[in-house]
Amino acid sequence: MRTFHFSTLPRVFSGACIVSKIEGDGPIGDCFDVVVGDDKMGLDSFEQAELQIFENAVRLSCHKSGLSTEDINCLFAGDLLNQIITANYGARNLGTPFLGLYGACSTMAESLLIGGAFVDGGFLDPVACIACSHFSTAERQFRYPLEMGTTSPPTAQRTVTGAGCLLVGRKLPPNPVYRHIALSGATVGRVIDLGITDGNNMGAAMAPAACDTILTYFSESGETPNDFDWIITGDLGRYGSELLFSLCEQKGIDLKGKHFDCGNVIYPPLEKFNCGGSGCGCSAVTLTGHFLPYLERGDVKRILFLATGALMSPTSSMQGESIPGIAHAVVLEHK
Amino acid sequence: MRTFHFSTLPRVFSGACIVSKIEGDGPIGDCFDVVVGDDKMGLDSFEQAELQIFENAVRLSCHKSGLSTEDINCLFAGDLLNQIITANYGARNLGTPFLGLYGACSTMAESLLIGGAFVDGGFLDPVACIACSHFSTAERQFRYPLEMGTTSPPTAQRTVTGAGCLLVGRKLPPNPVYRHIALSGATVGRVIDLGITDGNNMGAAMAPAACDTILTYFSESGETPNDFDWIITGDLGRYGSELLFSLCEQKGIDLKGKHFDCGNVIYPPLEKFNCGGSGCGCSAVTLTGHFLPYLERGDVKRILFLATGALMSPTSSMQGESIPGIAHAVVLEHK
Repeated sequence: MRTFHFSTLPRVFSGACIVSKIEGDGPIGDCFDVVVGDDKMGLDSFEQAELQIFENAVRLSCHKSGLSTEDINCLFAGDLLNQIITANYGARNLGTPFLGLYGACSTMAESLLIGGAFVDGGFLDPVACIACSHFSTAERQFRYPLEMGTTSPPTAQRTVTGAGCLLVGRKLPPNPVYRHIALSGATVGRVIDLGITDGNNMGAAMAPAACDTILTYFSESGETPNDFDWIITGDLGRYGSELLFSLCEQKGIDLKGKHFDCGNVIYPPLEKFNCGGSGCGCSAVTLTGHFLPYLERGDVKRILFLATGALMSPTSSMQGESIPGIAHAVVLEHK
Repeated sequence: MRTFHFSTLPRVFSGACIVSKIEGDGPIGDCFDVVVGDDKMGLDSFEQAELQIFENAVRLSCHKSGLSTEDINCLFAGDLLNQIITANYGARNLGTPFLGLYGACSTMAESLLIGGAFVDGGFLDPVACIACSHFSTAERQFRYPLEMGTTSPPTAQRTVTGAGCLLVGRKLPPNPVYRHIALSGATVGRVIDLGITDGNNMGAAMAPAACDTILTYFSESGETPNDFDWIITGDLGRYGSELLFSLCEQKGIDLKGKHFDCGNVIYPPLEKFNCGGSGCGCSAVTLTGHFLPYLERGDVKRILFLATGALMSPTSSMQGESIPGIAHAVVLEHK
């Protein structure tokens, strides 16, 4: 069994999301708390800008709910950079207790799953769950120096520049941003690898993991897709989403009318963006800014949120390894 | 509050540790389950060898207690490589559900802290907690290509090649390796940075974090060093341990006669090894192979185990950032 329930229904009581101009100009651009005009934010490096976005997302989510960062008993955080330096230096600057995670683009679901368990189990409360990525730091780390101006194939996705932070606790603080959002359960992902080796086709590498986690959640919980209004994946993009549909269909699960992918939602469907957004900031900001307000208002009652990660490194790829994927799931409910 | 107790006292019921010849030839060499003769294990790369050590430690800890890897409901794992590829590919090959962690050399305590909480909270059971490092993969990633044959200054520590895995569950399986080891509490670390920028003096970078976590554990739990037989740190090495002593002394905490550092224990005190061992495998194999049998036999009753991590990356160091440290603590008891 890798599916479990949160019996105290921990509340997601605040959240904040910060993105760059390209996401702010997109179809859901109005939903973000802050849109940063300059990718470098006037700092010396893209890494410093990513750190600033990370920190500000935590500070803002605290500020919105009348808390100080000192009230946060643990930061569950990760990013895409080697040794997750954004999360490390962010935790240093914030001064909060910190548990560092690496789940690539699955980080937002991993942090909600672990953070939810720590709150539900009565260990730490309240906690902050956050994921962050930056196009320019990721591009040069995983692919090519930006200065090369390389073009990307149609299956490629664009790493979202953004950070999304959610605060979780058993009780609502005096001034919560959200009053009706609860975490009710989760499924831990397995690493699935169907042998994809194309680093520009990560949606295909992650879709089988998403399918595996969806099937496992339904078989272990006894629920069906009809128990959910929405099934949201992190960043499969257009091809990955198509692949997920057909993989699920083969197993008798119909996602039609229920499935949204954060990578497809965040950018306009234009050639320039190829297959949509990716990066662990993608699902973090889209969930926080775009999807959760629907749940808060009660427009939808139950969401199965899966963030999907591609778990390779440039070293493993150069050594000929394929790209394994993972997907963790959490259930978010209107309460 | 960042200190909490495990009310069900999850049992550490099995463990396995695998090291390379240099650790096997050291002062505690007899305690390890497997000593690998060849750092590459006849494989194509050091990364593949590290993966093999990781996988085998999990398989062996299951085998020793009569379990199969399919019985493990979650692997809480991390390593030092970019994007924690050892843990990712290990989890893929093992087929177990997986939550990836990055805590640098603090990983073993982080995995026991999180794994213990998941077992104690009734979410997942049994789980495997594992950390792994390899001298040759770490050296070329963090410092210089091995082929350069660079020498290191007297403050440098040697990355341990090894993997240590512990299995944790609420109930003992029919054939447990350990019957009397329980996890009873933990303190989450904060990222502390006193401005050290020398990547060859990581003990100094990590000692302030260890001191902060020790002080926090005692102040939040109401206990004192007298409540422990041993206070074990991960890999501060010789200079880092001296620094920890004087930092703790300034705060009125006397560690004399109680403190051991895995980095000091694993290698002989010779010039060749400079300041001792490091890497997240260091505390993982030393705790698993050397210290836990004393607790099982009841020779000691209570251990405060802190693994300490230096949270920089080559990128952050080259950009002029200092090296922040973190230390997570778990309490292990004879029951």
